[in-house]
Amino acid sequence: MGYLTVKTVEEVNGILANFRIKRQVEKVKIFEGLNRELAEDVYAPISLPPFNRSAVDGYCVNWEDVAGASESLPIFLKVVGNIEMGQKPKGQLEREQAMVVATGSMLPEGANAVVMVEETERLAEDEVAIYSSVACYENVLVEGEDVKKGELVLAKGTKLTPENISLLAALGITEVEVFQKIQVGILSTGDELVEVGEEAKLGQIYNSNGPGLIAAVSSCGAIPRYYGIIEDDFNVLKESLEKAVKECQLVILTGGTSIGTKDYVVKAIDGIGKPGVLVHGIAIKPGKPTIIGAIDSTPIFGLSGNPFSALLGFRLFVQKLLAPSKEIFVKGKVARNIPSTGGRQDYIPVTIVKKEDGLWLNPLFSKSNSIGVLSKMDGLLVIEAASEGLEAGQIGKVMLKEGINDDLFK
Amino acid sequence: MGYLTVKTVEEVNGILANFRIKRQVEKVKIFEGLNRELAEDVYAPISLPPFNRSAVDGYCVNWEDVAGASESLPIFLKVVGNIEMGQKPKGQLEREQAMVVATGSMLPEGANAVVMVEETERLAEDEVAIYSSVACYENVLVEGEDVKKGELVLAKGTKLTPENISLLAALGITEVEVFQKIQVGILSTGDELVEVGEEAKLGQIYNSNGPGLIAAVSSCGAIPRYYGIIEDDFNVLKESLEKAVKECQLVILTGGTSIGTKDYVVKAIDGIGKPGVLVHGIAIKPGKPTIIGAIDSTPIFGLSGNPFSALLGFRLFVQKLLAPSKEIFVKGKVARNIPSTGGRQDYIPVTIVKKEDGLWLNPLFSKSNSIGVLSKMDGLLVIEAASEGLEAGQIGKVMLKEGINDDLFK
Repeated sequence: MGYLTVKTVEEVNGILANFRIKRQVEKVKIFEGLNRELAEDVYAPISLPPFNRSAVDGYCVNWEDVAGASESLPIFLKVVGNIEMGQKPKGQLEREQAMVVATGSMLPEGANAVVMVEETERLAEDEVAIYSSVACYENVLVEGEDVKKGELVLAKGTKLTPENISLLAALGITEVEVFQKIQVGILSTGDELVEVGEEAKLGQIYNSNGPGLIAAVSSCGAIPRYYGIIEDDFNVLKESLEKAVKECQLVILTGGTSIGTKDYVVKAIDGIGKPGVLVHGIAIKPGKPTIIGAIDSTPIFGLSGNPFSALLGFRLFVQKLLAPSKEIFVKGKVARNIPSTGGRQDYIPVTIVKKEDGLWLNPLFSKSNSIGVLSKMDGLLVIEAASEGLEAGQIGKVMLKEGINDDLFK
Repeated sequence: MGYLTVKTVEEVNGILANFRIKRQVEKVKIFEGLNRELAEDVYAPISLPPFNRSAVDGYCVNWEDVAGASESLPIFLKVVGNIEMGQKPKGQLEREQAMVVATGSMLPEGANAVVMVEETERLAEDEVAIYSSVACYENVLVEGEDVKKGELVLAKGTKLTPENISLLAALGITEVEVFQKIQVGILSTGDELVEVGEEAKLGQIYNSNGPGLIAAVSSCGAIPRYYGIIEDDFNVLKESLEKAVKECQLVILTGGTSIGTKDYVVKAIDGIGKPGVLVHGIAIKPGKPTIIGAIDSTPIFGLSGNPFSALLGFRLFVQKLLAPSKEIFVKGKVARNIPSTGGRQDYIPVTIVKKEDGLWLNPLFSKSNSIGVLSKMDGLLVIEAASEGLEAGQIGKVMLKEGINDDLFK
């Protein structure tokens, strides 16, 4: 099994960039839309504010009527009403008149400014003294100043954050079209595996890639569909893979550690449809035996059975398609010399310590990068293919592990 | 309504740091545990690997038997069996013997190294030539080298990431104790509000804080409980707040923009229990009229009715309790002079542009920071209370809006 066609990470990223996962569209209520991606451009059906509103508690006026008003030379206006919150004003404001408004009250026609209550004195039921002049539209939120009716407010592809949902609600929009969540098929292989919850006999190990990838897929906002542990038999593998490709928009298969199974995966993918296997071997460590292919628009990833390598492969390649924004890098100084073989990208698990002079990266060397390291590390130091390692004190780039950004950005 | 007791952001953070939200514990299946926080220390019930495993395909041997083997001087061993994946070896390995192993196979007693298949030649059913020597435990994953039985693998408080779930599965753990999700009561006030989906008459506006905060709370991994739009009446407000405090572990109330309502909120909180109102006014802009209090261990936040200020208040104060790691800052150069009044923290909405020389921050100046800005901005530039503004080209710190980290860290 030679990797005659080993590709660089850049080549693989170029292939991934051309993948177009087919996505259906569905309507969701905005309350259920968190983190979904808009499948339509959203235009404002109304203006915001939808009418002139007062920004303060006070008296609405015609600004020209109070020009020159001051503490020593107040101007007196006739109070002709009270605009209740949420009510349409009864009638319009004539010159030399004022109406009581609260913050948020709709202004009547004829009013173009509001004097804050602190700058006034109510002399009688129908009379108020104004102690301060105001500019035109002072203390007024003018209809459409925030959002204009018909304006594009959220473009197709935008992720619905709380801020965006708040905006949709303000516009009176109850439902939006979003892309359906991507369904991701997960298949485990390995005759030594048993599912967690069953009894592992001596010689067997628990399947950790199944649960790990189910969680990783969910964490990317996609829907995991788990197909279980697939028997190490070519026909069984091909049938299972074919089923998953039919039912999902992306498929991940882990394992193939036993003799021959790696070839099964390549043969199965090529046997199901076109374009078939596109990548067989990548110049990274760990993760060299990664397989990437596609049937029509459905990408298929054949990841290592080693849990550390499987999750790294997920983060590096699958996540790039499902949730690219989850990939966060930080820079720090390496605390020790870290050798690396040129010609391949190396991923070294590190812990990160925040010191006075910035972040320091401590490599976690272990004989085999295995699952225990996943809980101990804070991220993976990337050593580029062109580099032969880093010396202590040099700057390195770390891909953060999920959930490890707590204090590093403060 | 004076803010006689306006507190600095540091003082408020000091108060928040002392809040202890009461949290119950529950058991969850690891498959459902994503992003939950462990309520127990987890110790390894088994070692990983649970037995000596082969790291390659080849022949397991006693390393001393093949010392000195080379291409020109091979050593010949008797092949006594085949260890199937997931099977316990039948019998032990004697000196001068070899067994066929696959990657992941359990090694028999007596075997302490594996020769890769590429370094061997099978001469007969019962004979193999070994062309390379191996060190003790070469190509062997030794029992417990990754995780030792009894070792603390995940500490109480750890968030369950895909990596951690994978580790739990590998250890055969099916359920863990986690903290229950925090239930957050959300109450809106404002007689001008109607719920989205209903018809807004002239003078009324849609309630955007309800949906926005429901999404923000969900996004923090907590459970929103929405109590609707509460009438501007002291007794109704107090009763609703009391119900929410009884049913939730944290309560958010927005609004109180109409005359008198701000006092209602303070009076209601103080009337329900102790310690009552702790903060009434914060030296920030926007967000000065923020109220923070508590009834026993249940924090209560009175946020502005303005959607921009309400969500800012949520991010600055509520999120600090629910999901502190969601707060992500980046630094960049401000593209224009930005004046600021000393003595208070200013939050200026900005867009962020990535250029050759780093990130540039463009302030979005608007007459009122309102809801339209929420969709346009990438984050909020923080100008500290001690500063009187930033000059063009100076470095500023931005609190990123949720979902805006896509390319800034690449």
